[in-house]
Amino acid sequence: MGKLLRVNTKEKTFGFEEVPEAYAGLGGRALTSKMILDEVPATCHPLGKANKLIFSPGLLTGSPAANSGRLSAGAKSPLTGGIKESNSGGYASQKLARLGIAALVLEDKPEEDEFSIIVINNDSVEVLPAGDLTNAGNYEVMEKLWQKYGKNVAVISIGQAGEQCLKGASMNQADLNGRPGRAHGRGGLGAVMGSKKIKAIVVDDKGAPRVEIKDPEAFKAANKRWVDMLKSHPVSGQGLPSYGTAVLVNLVNEAGAFPTKNFRSGRFEHAQDISGEKMAELIEQRGGVTTEGCHPGCVIKCSNVYHDKDGKYLTSGFEYETIWAFGAHTTIKELDDIAMLDRLCDDFGLDTIEMGVAIGIAMEGGMIPWGDGKAAIDLLSKVGDFAPEGKIIGNGSVFTGEALGVDRIPVVKKQALPAYDPRSCKGVGVTYATTPMGADHTAGYGVTANILSVGGTIDPCKKEGNIELSQNLQVATAAIDAAGLCLFIAFAILDDEDGVPTIVDMLNARYGLTLTPNDIVALGKSILNNEKEFNRKAGFTEIDDQLPEMFNETFPPHNTTWDFTLEELSETLKF
Amino acid sequence: MGKLLRVNTKEKTFGFEEVPEAYAGLGGRALTSKMILDEVPATCHPLGKANKLIFSPGLLTGSPAANSGRLSAGAKSPLTGGIKESNSGGYASQKLARLGIAALVLEDKPEEDEFSIIVINNDSVEVLPAGDLTNAGNYEVMEKLWQKYGKNVAVISIGQAGEQCLKGASMNQADLNGRPGRAHGRGGLGAVMGSKKIKAIVVDDKGAPRVEIKDPEAFKAANKRWVDMLKSHPVSGQGLPSYGTAVLVNLVNEAGAFPTKNFRSGRFEHAQDISGEKMAELIEQRGGVTTEGCHPGCVIKCSNVYHDKDGKYLTSGFEYETIWAFGAHTTIKELDDIAMLDRLCDDFGLDTIEMGVAIGIAMEGGMIPWGDGKAAIDLLSKVGDFAPEGKIIGNGSVFTGEALGVDRIPVVKKQALPAYDPRSCKGVGVTYATTPMGADHTAGYGVTANILSVGGTIDPCKKEGNIELSQNLQVATAAIDAAGLCLFIAFAILDDEDGVPTIVDMLNARYGLTLTPNDIVALGKSILNNEKEFNRKAGFTEIDDQLPEMFNETFPPHNTTWDFTLEELSETLKF
Repeated sequence: MGKLLRVNTKEKTFGFEEVPEAYAGLGGRALTSKMILDEVPATCHPLGKANKLIFSPGLLTGSPAANSGRLSAGAKSPLTGGIKESNSGGYASQKLARLGIAALVLEDKPEEDEFSIIVINNDSVEVLPAGDLTNAGNYEVMEKLWQKYGKNVAVISIGQAGEQCLKGASMNQADLNGRPGRAHGRGGLGAVMGSKKIKAIVVDDKGAPRVEIKDPEAFKAANKRWVDMLKSHPVSGQGLPSYGTAVLVNLVNEAGAFPTKNFRSGRFEHAQDISGEKMAELIEQRGGVTTEGCHPGCVIKCSNVYHDKDGKYLTSGFEYETIWAFGAHTTIKELDDIAMLDRLCDDFGLDTIEMGVAIGIAMEGGMIPWGDGKAAIDLLSKVGDFAPEGKIIGNGSVFTGEALGVDRIPVVKKQALPAYDPRSCKGVGVTYATTPMGADHTAGYGVTANILSVGGTIDPCKKEGNIELSQNLQVATAAIDAAGLCLFIAFAILDDEDGVPTIVDMLNARYGLTLTPNDIVALGKSILNNEKEFNRKAGFTEIDDQLPEMFNETFPPHNTTWDFTLEELSETLKF
Repeated sequence: MGKLLRVNTKEKTFGFEEVPEAYAGLGGRALTSKMILDEVPATCHPLGKANKLIFSPGLLTGSPAANSGRLSAGAKSPLTGGIKESNSGGYASQKLARLGIAALVLEDKPEEDEFSIIVINNDSVEVLPAGDLTNAGNYEVMEKLWQKYGKNVAVISIGQAGEQCLKGASMNQADLNGRPGRAHGRGGLGAVMGSKKIKAIVVDDKGAPRVEIKDPEAFKAANKRWVDMLKSHPVSGQGLPSYGTAVLVNLVNEAGAFPTKNFRSGRFEHAQDISGEKMAELIEQRGGVTTEGCHPGCVIKCSNVYHDKDGKYLTSGFEYETIWAFGAHTTIKELDDIAMLDRLCDDFGLDTIEMGVAIGIAMEGGMIPWGDGKAAIDLLSKVGDFAPEGKIIGNGSVFTGEALGVDRIPVVKKQALPAYDPRSCKGVGVTYATTPMGADHTAGYGVTANILSVGGTIDPCKKEGNIELSQNLQVATAAIDAAGLCLFIAFAILDDEDGVPTIVDMLNARYGLTLTPNDIVALGKSILNNEKEFNRKAGFTEIDDQLPEMFNETFPPHNTTWDFTLEELSETLKF
């Protein structure tokens, strides 16, 4: 295990400490969630000095294990009021791991208004004035920081949204080209960073040793099996590399679970116009990149670079959920408008799911017309202007709905539902309702067995089997997030019995341990129990583990409804 | 008992029904809270069709009992998410009682955008198009409705805030001059009325009989004792009639419990400029009215009419909490600016406490400068313009704080704390924390024994005795609200052992009952238990029964802190 690096954002001081015994064997989400439970008063104001913002690389991060470069960020969420873990690709996780930092903990908050940046390298930690980075968007921030510190540093930064402490604010990471295409998107953690007046974190691992592997031979052998497994699965080896995650547009639309016009139906008549196939065609015509990893060592490469019609760079990391949120949910059908909205989110530092859903709510409330991409772009631009409209939309779906008096707001724990309707994809619906994170598909991606026939087949429109599906996936996902692995490795491990044992072999070889697959399950459960415990102390009850009443409406084309009882749902995460 | 009048706001239909056996003996807050518990799903969206807006006159309302003309309004609150009862003076309650209406229940909600008005008289109930009343402020609405229906009708209406479904929206009642100086202020019930697209309710009792008094002689005798008691008490007989509720400015400031600059200290250096004495002086100079009742039969007459420096009408019903909220809390020291802010609240239909606190939060967040009355007037005016800034401020303190990233927000259950600091007036602090209503001084006015030496003396800066004080007052207040009595009768009944028996005598004479004072206590407790039960079903826990962390700060001049534990507070309403 490495060390904890604590930075006091008020005093501009830092200190290293040994990882306590109690945290041995924890990394990524396991460590952020445990530390938040232990150190953050559950009833504190998320933007107050008592909240902490914690970054932790996964247990495998920094090693050569394929797709192990995710970084967990955790805090009490300004959006949900509960615990939050949000992870992202980018460079930072592997560099922190190589620097021997098990967790970077931002504490306290300054009284003055000036922003700072934190620069971490192998010899020093500095808290420096942000200077002219203040009020800048992430594109400019990252460009300037690469200019100053070189292209080999990782950058985590906030845009204007985080500076304003908006609940939709993300923290963005420089991608492999120094653009803010990767994001700790969900839960408004950018607002926590903003409240602590940290504009950016620069991580430079120059001179740092490689991470130690206790049994290099065993590790190498396991990682080879691992890479083969990821590359040979049809989803992670073919679908995602070819079309990106937007391959799902046609699949989910066909399944009738593609929420359209604020969750009124499951099919969008213009789905073709915003599909992964269409996107890949445009990227190729215009000279973009269809296949790119979000961090070194990725073998799936679901990311991309999208150019505008003049062949100029427009956005990158353009994903299915983003396209859904700004597309079918709002009925905007112009992919270029959606790409511009994605770019604005990356630049201002905003969660694309929360913003897309909020734009739909703004349409529901009559603020802008349904399907009007230009009006949506104008509205979202107000966040960058620090204008009142931006403070409304940038605070997310519930806030926008409350500003406009809208009563159909698709959220759980105040976080917007993503791109799969819970009535016709009930496995993920159970996850939305019960995960401690607020509505989040990544917390237990039931789309696998519901729609993709991965890891078996469970009817997406019926209740049977979907509680168990969500439970198993939530436990597995928590462990995956602790390992620092990309969620998309799940396709392979669900279909290959050797998947989990291979991960266990890599962990054992990395640390010289003798873990079994059962230990991984136990780790996943303990993470969820810690998160539930924090939320309970923050005032959450089982009443918060359900969908809002709008999902009692019958949902075409399959005419499904949300029919789980509170009692049934409350069984999901009882271990 | 009278009848229930249900109006379906979607179908524009109505029906009368007998009051069910289970509701026998309930009126005012007792009836609204019981019906909401029974009929409104606790987890519904407050602006959705499942919420109901219920008006109920008190048990003594319509009788000649002095100060018995209050009207309770209840619903699930858009502001707190819990149950809400908010009562007001005005004409409506007595007229509804004479029409034999125990409760008026607004149900469902229309799909179209057009507003309606409800006109209730002795022969008919009509739901009519609001026409040119739509988008109008309460002053204009009331003037037009008096022009159309005559000066003998009661009017309850919403302004632009309620139309926009803002969480700070009040429902205003025409005062004795047809001006919207009386308000169901707290909890955003105007937004519920707005969600149901009801712009105004007109109540005409022409031709209705007097309410039946079973034993007129006994009633008359008890009421005489009652009037004497109210008139002979120094607070209700002298202080309030002379200076209005603003008599408290100097008293509470002197006690060091006058929250200044967003609860940073307990004394405001410009308290004299906004005191009741100063106000009375200006009113007399300018030709206003210092002493006016809020409903026929009031013998306390704490209300007033305030003219501007040119001697023209500016506002009425100008109260202590309003003056505090727009004054000391924001450090605005110009009484005329504060009066203008009060007028804007009455016109747009906004709770003055919530708005004053929100304006202070806007100052805390840098949106406008501290102490700048003109900037506050400009900002509040945006509500009337339907502008984005208005949607922020009009949604109250939490919303404004969230828009601006402010972490010092003085609320309980998302409702703003009123004009008495909980650290140096702990009796009312316990009420703020524990009442099911969200922070509300009227729910258990511990200022009595803490500062006014009414009903004994309990040290406002120490814990001892203040839990019991709050409990006793909360129980008594719930019963007072059920009777339809003005809260200010409490001064007399706390200091006169014959107070409660006199009320009991009036109830018995009115209905031919044999109640005892113990029955009144039992009624108060049952009301609170119903309200707590609704909140529990809505997801509230004991964690919601506390003050936010900002009250851990030491509070000058007495250097007090908020030092009750959750365990201590949880005892307050355990019966």
